[in-house]
Amino acid sequence: MSNNYCLIMAGGSGTRFWPRSRVAKPKQYLSLFGDQSLIQESVQRFANFIPEESIYVVSAKSQQAVLESQTGNLQKKNLIYEPVGKNTLPAIGLAALFIAEKDPDGILIVSPSDHLIQNDELFRQCIDSAALIADQKEGIVTIGITPKHPATGYGYVQTAEEIQIGQPIKSFSVSRFVEKPNVEVANGYLKQGGFFWNSGIFVFKVSVFLNAVQQYAPELFADLMRIKEHIGKDSYETALDRIYREVNSISIDYGILEKASNVFLVQGDFVWNDLGSWEEVYKYDRNKDENQNATVGEVVLIDTQNSYVYAPNSLVAVVGMDDVIVVQEGDTILVCKRDRAEDIKAVVGEITKRKLDQYL
Amino acid sequence: MSNNYCLIMAGGSGTRFWPRSRVAKPKQYLSLFGDQSLIQESVQRFANFIPEESIYVVSAKSQQAVLESQTGNLQKKNLIYEPVGKNTLPAIGLAALFIAEKDPDGILIVSPSDHLIQNDELFRQCIDSAALIADQKEGIVTIGITPKHPATGYGYVQTAEEIQIGQPIKSFSVSRFVEKPNVEVANGYLKQGGFFWNSGIFVFKVSVFLNAVQQYAPELFADLMRIKEHIGKDSYETALDRIYREVNSISIDYGILEKASNVFLVQGDFVWNDLGSWEEVYKYDRNKDENQNATVGEVVLIDTQNSYVYAPNSLVAVVGMDDVIVVQEGDTILVCKRDRAEDIKAVVGEITKRKLDQYL
Repeated sequence: MSNNYCLIMAGGSGTRFWPRSRVAKPKQYLSLFGDQSLIQESVQRFANFIPEESIYVVSAKSQQAVLESQTGNLQKKNLIYEPVGKNTLPAIGLAALFIAEKDPDGILIVSPSDHLIQNDELFRQCIDSAALIADQKEGIVTIGITPKHPATGYGYVQTAEEIQIGQPIKSFSVSRFVEKPNVEVANGYLKQGGFFWNSGIFVFKVSVFLNAVQQYAPELFADLMRIKEHIGKDSYETALDRIYREVNSISIDYGILEKASNVFLVQGDFVWNDLGSWEEVYKYDRNKDENQNATVGEVVLIDTQNSYVYAPNSLVAVVGMDDVIVVQEGDTILVCKRDRAEDIKAVVGEITKRKLDQYL
Repeated sequence: MSNNYCLIMAGGSGTRFWPRSRVAKPKQYLSLFGDQSLIQESVQRFANFIPEESIYVVSAKSQQAVLESQTGNLQKKNLIYEPVGKNTLPAIGLAALFIAEKDPDGILIVSPSDHLIQNDELFRQCIDSAALIADQKEGIVTIGITPKHPATGYGYVQTAEEIQIGQPIKSFSVSRFVEKPNVEVANGYLKQGGFFWNSGIFVFKVSVFLNAVQQYAPELFADLMRIKEHIGKDSYETALDRIYREVNSISIDYGILEKASNVFLVQGDFVWNDLGSWEEVYKYDRNKDENQNATVGEVVLIDTQNSYVYAPNSLVAVVGMDDVIVVQEGDTILVCKRDRAEDIKAVVGEITKRKLDQYL
C-alpha cells in the first residue's frame, strides 16, 4: 500500500463573507464555527490520520503571512505558493512536483480548505476507500456527496456501475462530470438517481495525476517540468515567477476529470457544505438558542428569531427582527435579510464603485 | 410691553435614543437632524427674536461640560444648574429667581430643549401672541398643539371660550389639563374638539409665576426664597446644594397649571413632535431618498426601503430590509424594527442586568 499525502488548496479569494472576508483575509482563514478557522479545521481533519509532514498546502504568495500564522503545526517547506492564481489544475500540478520528488507513488488527497465537513470518522472511511481505489485501479477518484436537494450551485458527477472496492463505503465508475445545472435539470438528476455533488475532493497517485496532466494538458506539463528543474535551487523563486505567470488558468475538473476515462467516485454521506454564504453559516451553526438564533459576542436580542449575529468586538442589540444576519467587523457592519445573503456581492460592487477600498 | 426672556429646560436624561443617548449625553445634546443638536436648535429658534443675553438654560450639574460645549453663544451666568433633578417646577423656580433679580416684570418663555419644531416663523407668532396674553391677562399661557391623531403619549389641554388677543393666532381660556389618555379617551377628545396636545411650552410674567408658586406650592416657594438670599454670594453653591436636595420633585403641570385659574392656551399649528423614539426621528427626517430611506454616514443600501441608518463612523450595508432602524455609536450597534422602537427600554434593561455599564 502506498503512503498517503494530503494537499489542501487554500489560494481562493472572495467576498461572499464580507465584511469578515476581506481581500487580505479570504474565507478559508475565517473562524466561522468556534475558534478554529476553516483551513485549520481542514488540516486537523486530515491530521487525524495523515502525518503532519505529509500534509501540504498550496496557496497564493499574497496569503503567506496569514497562512503561516494559522498553520504553525505544518512544516514551512510544505507550504507551496503560487506567484499568481491560475485555478486548481496548475496549483495542484505545482504542489505535485514537490510530493513527487519525495514519493512518486504516493497517494495524493486533494481537498479544498474552506468547506464544512461534519462526521470526521465517516469522512476518513471515504478517504481510505478512495485511496484504496486510486491505488488498485490506478485511477482518479472523486468524493461525491449524495444530493439532498436540487442544488444549482454545485457541479454534479454522474456515475455508472458500482465497483467492489472499499465496502461498506459505496463506489462507482464515473460516466461524466456536469456543470452547475438549472433547477429543472437538477430536479431531473435527483429523479434519475446516480448523480452526486462534486465536492472538489480528489484522490490519485501522484504519478497517475502527472501522467494525466501530460496527456490532457501537455503545455502545462511542459511548464511544470521546467519549474521542476529549479526545485531546491536558488533560482526557484525567480524561475517559478517567470514560468508560472505564462501558465493558462484551468480547473482540474475541466482540464482532466472531464477528459480522463479512468475516473471513479466514492459516495460521501457525511455532512458537507461549501459554505457559499452567511445563510449556510447560520444553518450549520450548532449552537443556536431556543429561538433559533446563533450569536457570537455580546448580543442582546429582544423578540428576535431565526437570526445570526456576529460581533465579537461590539455590543449589538436586535429588536423585533426575524431571519436577519448582522455581522460587525472592524468599522463595517452588515445587516442582511437571510434569504438575500447572495446579494452581498452587490454590496461589494457598490463599495468598489465608491472607491472605498479600505472596506474591502 | 415687558421684555421677553427665554428659559430652556435641559436637565432631562433618558435612553430612548440608545445607543446614541447615553448617561453622559442625553437626547437634548444629540444632533438628530443635521449638524445642530436639539438644544442648539432650540436656542437658535429663540435667538431669532430674543437677545442672547435674555436666553437662560436650566440643566443638571452633571451636564455642565456638555451644555457649555454646545452653548458657546450664551453667557455662562445664564446657565443655571440644579444639583439634583427635581422635575420641572423647582427647576423653573430656581431659574426664575435669577431672571426676577434682573427684571421681575419680564415675560418668561419656558421651553423644552429636546423637541422638534418646524416652521420657525409661525412658532414665533405663537410665542408673541402668548407673551401678549401673559402681559395683558397677567395669566399663565401654554402653547397647545392641534392634535393630528389620538396620541396616547401626550397630555391634553381642554379649552373653553376663545379670547380676542393676538389674532390671527387663535387663543382660548383653559378649562383643564388632562394626563396621557388611553386611545378610546383620546379618540373622544378629537371627536369632541377643543382639546390640544400639551407642548410643555409656557409663557408668563416672572412675578405671576412666582406668585403662583407661593399660592400653590408654598413649601417650594419658601425654599426658593432661602436660596435667593445666597444668589451672588460665595455661599450660593453650598446653600443651593443643601436646600435643593430637600425640595420635593414636582412638575409645573401638576404643581401649578392644573390648579391655577388664570390659564390660557395659544393654538400652535406649527410642526411639533416630542421625539419620543427613533421612529419619530425617521418620520421627521427631511432628507429621505427615493426609497424613503434616511441615512447618515457611509451607507450602502441594496433593495432596502423605509429605513433609517445612522453610522457616521462606520460603513453600514443593509440588504433586503424594510422598515428597519440601524444605529451605530462607538462600539454599540442597534438593529430594530421600526414599529418596535419603543422597546429600546428593554435593551437598556438587559444591558443593565448584565452589568455592562460601559454601554449605557
